Amino acid sequence: MSWTETDGRLERHFSFANFREAFAFMTRVAFIAEELNHHPEWSNVYGNVTIVLTTHDAGNTVTDLDRAFAKAVDALV
Amino acid sequence: MSWTETDGRLERHFSFANFREAFAFMTRVAFIAEELNHHPEWSNVYGNVTIVLTTHDAGNTVTDLDRAFAKAVDALV
Amino acid sequence: MSWTETDGRLERHFSFANFREAFAFMTRVAFIAEELNHHPEWSNVYGNVTIVLTTHDAGNTVTDLDRAFAKAVDALV
Amino acid sequence: MSWTETDGRLERHFSFANFREAFAFMTRVAFIAEELNHHPEWSNVYGNVTIVLTTHDAGNTVTDLDRAFAKAVDALV
Repeated sequence: MSWTETDGRLERHFSFANFREAFAFMTRVAFIAEELNHHPEWSNVYGNVTIVLTTHDAGNTVTDLDRAFAKAVDALV
Repeated sequence: MSWTETDGRLERHFSFANFREAFAFMTRVAFIAEELNHHPEWSNVYGNVTIVLTTHDAGNTVTDLDRAFAKAVDALV
Repeated sequence: MSWTETDGRLERHFSFANFREAFAFMTRVAFIAEELNHHPEWSNVYGNVTIVLTTHDAGNTVTDLDRAFAKAVDALV
Repeated sequence: MSWTETDGRLERHFSFANFREAFAFMTRVAFIAEELNHHPEWSNVYGNVTIVLTTHDAGNTVTDLDRAFAKAVDALV
């Protein structure tokens, strides 16, 4: 499974064995967010994490910044 | 602002100065989730965190477990 | 490499590619510490993490609790 | 209590009510480390955190980078 682009949003769902593994992943993603100074709309339930990327300053479209974020996350998993 | 209960869900919104503070708060909440072995449906955008609590095993109603979770989170802020 | 036991302490060193990966590992270990209600003496420099386990209440000896902790950490890596 | 400078190292000790609070603090410090691309030698036992700062590339002396790190940490507590 990979990122899907719809309505100016890049979205991907991730599944982990449990909450701890999901949260450890989120910690790694948090560092990416701070590095790029670009922050996801994301949610978590137990082992599931959904990340949505869009650039508000570009009228809620998917920009190179969102693509760089997605690529960095993909490198983690 | 406090928790609101609607449709079998207990929900509260939290605002922080920035993403880092929001994520540090989430780390503290993650420990509560593991302690209670009860996990929130939660989402984050920059400094905003929304926590939704419900007990699936009780037919998606608000139980004492959700209330204990909410109380533990309130003790953090 | 594995755990070494010396002077009533169980110790293991871990190396990661960078600080972020080391810290994500520490987050996972932190959940173990809270689960067991047993806390390591640990240190980190960049990608290196050293964990030392001992049971103060047992006169600073290595107990089953330390061994359970070590085993749980080993399951992560 | 504040930072002490000895032998080319800036050091400060922090105490928290418990392990969780100490680790949440460490998460916030981790973001500083990544932002400055400068990483502490630090250790934790339960609610205690010790941070040591030095610049290896400057022959293990205390530089402006260490002072900026210390200042950013001070702003957290």
